[in-house]
Amino acid sequence: MNLETLETPALVLDADIMERNVARLRERLKTLGVPLRPHVKTAKCDEVAKRALEGQPGGITVSTLAEAEYFAARGVRDILYAVGIAPNKVKHVQDLRRRGVDVTVVLDNPAQASFVSDLPCLIEIDCDGHRSGVKPDSPSLVDLGRKVKNLRGVMTHAGASYNCRGTEAIVEMAERERSAVVTASRRLGIKDPVVSVGSTPTAHFARDLQGVSEVRAGVYVFFDLVMAGISVCRIEDIALSVLATVIGHQPEKGWAITDAGWMAMSRDRGTASQPLDQGYGLVCDADGRPLEGVIVKDANQEHGILAHRSGDRARLPHLPVGTLVRVLPNHACATAAQHRAYHVVRGSSAVEARWERMGGW
Amino acid sequence: MNLETLETPALVLDADIMERNVARLRERLKTLGVPLRPHVKTAKCDEVAKRALEGQPGGITVSTLAEAEYFAARGVRDILYAVGIAPNKVKHVQDLRRRGVDVTVVLDNPAQASFVSDLPCLIEIDCDGHRSGVKPDSPSLVDLGRKVKNLRGVMTHAGASYNCRGTEAIVEMAERERSAVVTASRRLGIKDPVVSVGSTPTAHFARDLQGVSEVRAGVYVFFDLVMAGISVCRIEDIALSVLATVIGHQPEKGWAITDAGWMAMSRDRGTASQPLDQGYGLVCDADGRPLEGVIVKDANQEHGILAHRSGDRARLPHLPVGTLVRVLPNHACATAAQHRAYHVVRGSSAVEARWERMGGW
Repeated sequence: MNLETLETPALVLDADIMERNVARLRERLKTLGVPLRPHVKTAKCDEVAKRALEGQPGGITVSTLAEAEYFAARGVRDILYAVGIAPNKVKHVQDLRRRGVDVTVVLDNPAQASFVSDLPCLIEIDCDGHRSGVKPDSPSLVDLGRKVKNLRGVMTHAGASYNCRGTEAIVEMAERERSAVVTASRRLGIKDPVVSVGSTPTAHFARDLQGVSEVRAGVYVFFDLVMAGISVCRIEDIALSVLATVIGHQPEKGWAITDAGWMAMSRDRGTASQPLDQGYGLVCDADGRPLEGVIVKDANQEHGILAHRSGDRARLPHLPVGTLVRVLPNHACATAAQHRAYHVVRGSSAVEARWERMGGW
Repeated sequence: MNLETLETPALVLDADIMERNVARLRERLKTLGVPLRPHVKTAKCDEVAKRALEGQPGGITVSTLAEAEYFAARGVRDILYAVGIAPNKVKHVQDLRRRGVDVTVVLDNPAQASFVSDLPCLIEIDCDGHRSGVKPDSPSLVDLGRKVKNLRGVMTHAGASYNCRGTEAIVEMAERERSAVVTASRRLGIKDPVVSVGSTPTAHFARDLQGVSEVRAGVYVFFDLVMAGISVCRIEDIALSVLATVIGHQPEKGWAITDAGWMAMSRDRGTASQPLDQGYGLVCDADGRPLEGVIVKDANQEHGILAHRSGDRARLPHLPVGTLVRVLPNHACATAAQHRAYHVVRGSSAVEARWERMGGW
């Protein structure tokens, strides 16, 4: 099978690029002396997770209990469920634990502490104000720590790093992430605590991870346009693309229409707030080489509208009906979630495997 | 089973509301004397399509060949594939036809006319400049008609009706849609042509469908905030919601955090360009009653951030950890696509059925 024989749209994964990305973070964290607990929410695929786990202790991070079930069924025994625990999920976690899977949950308030009973917990620390968590210097932190029966440590996620401009800002954010959990952990006074940090940007730019026991990252396996937009990767490091076919044109507007709309790309417009807005994706030829300046400027459910970003219709290259293009995604997690499987290539158009994804809750 | 026993997030469908929506359009089109060819891309579910097909001829509209396969396997024999045909899909359509399924394809250019061979075709007409299609008065239309071996008629979709302000604008758009295909059909001179129009807004406000042989609509079965924002429905006509649990707070910001992020809501921000921006969704209590002014103001993959739209933290109601909320979606097609099944209720919290959805390509 090769890309020319697939029905479009189809999700394409270049495994050479992915393996290079995985090796890059592995080498980096080896130098810093901290193990990786990969976040499997991006790929939701055993074949990808296996590669990310090479040379690591074997624990993973999940964003849903459905991910926990899927990876537990494939032999993973150490799982951090990194979304604040809800009462309707406690039984499910207990059930996973009864089956020998060491699931740790996350919380940031006393109500959660009361209903999690003796489940092992990390307290979520807020290092950047972007979402959940207790501030590392909050008076309530130590009180909360006393209320948690089985406290293993602390975790934080510098989600605000996605909005950093320039790598120096990411270096600073990484240090904020580190110092937040190290401070919190010291105040809580746990013996041999888990001190967990992570986001793809900070994992790649932290200069020092003193006091940190593990790093979490997910999107780094594939990278995407948002990551390229903040210089965490280059365009050629993006392993994921959506194969699409040109089905028509509106020449007077400088449009080519494809069969990959938002259902195939997702509605994610993460580059809209970056200096270079990539629309719904950056358009490449069938070999994955960017067509200079061509983006998916708009999308309907199963239609993508390609145009030159300048709006100059003369700058749209000749793309006859039937032409295959590959579209790089704004956000790998969101685009991959629209698909049931990866069509795996290595630099060429030969599809060497189909890797199924899981989904749902 | 009831909503309180589900793990969240979960997609909830109020079947009473859906059946009311289906009856509304059925009655309306009966008065106008035109049958409905429901677009199944919104629900992607046999149970919903069955209800939409009551009292109709039995043909459906699909946006993917995977939908065509799914509905063919469930007995549907008349299918319009309403996305411009790509060369890599011709064999699949031929195969469906060999199995007794009357699949019609859509095209708007001579390249497609050459590779579709003798597949039955509709020419797509551009009534509003929003996407694909030939202008009804274009000199190229008649030439294209001559090149299509098996031409059944014309179709158009007034996607621009989603951006109408006020119902008078939708009435005008419906007439533009009608006159575009009627003009095109007359110019093509086909005997007993298919003359197909459709969008949820125009279907509900067309005053006259003279010369039209069928109407297509999809989102009307569920409705959503975008449709409410242009007065096609009321908030209480929205049949779809996402059940979520409050997992924490940031009181100094006026935030409640839930376990329904963009993975559960989709990244669709369709109301962002409307007068009333609903964020990632309008928040209701567990019975589906809107919490005045509370929206999902931001979303991460598995986290939703609830806040009062005014930004006034005092106006966020008391929502203790563990509280169930139901979030109405911006765009039903996009939100439903993030889920594998509907949890069916009828006004109360009792879940009377689980209806599976299909997806992919």
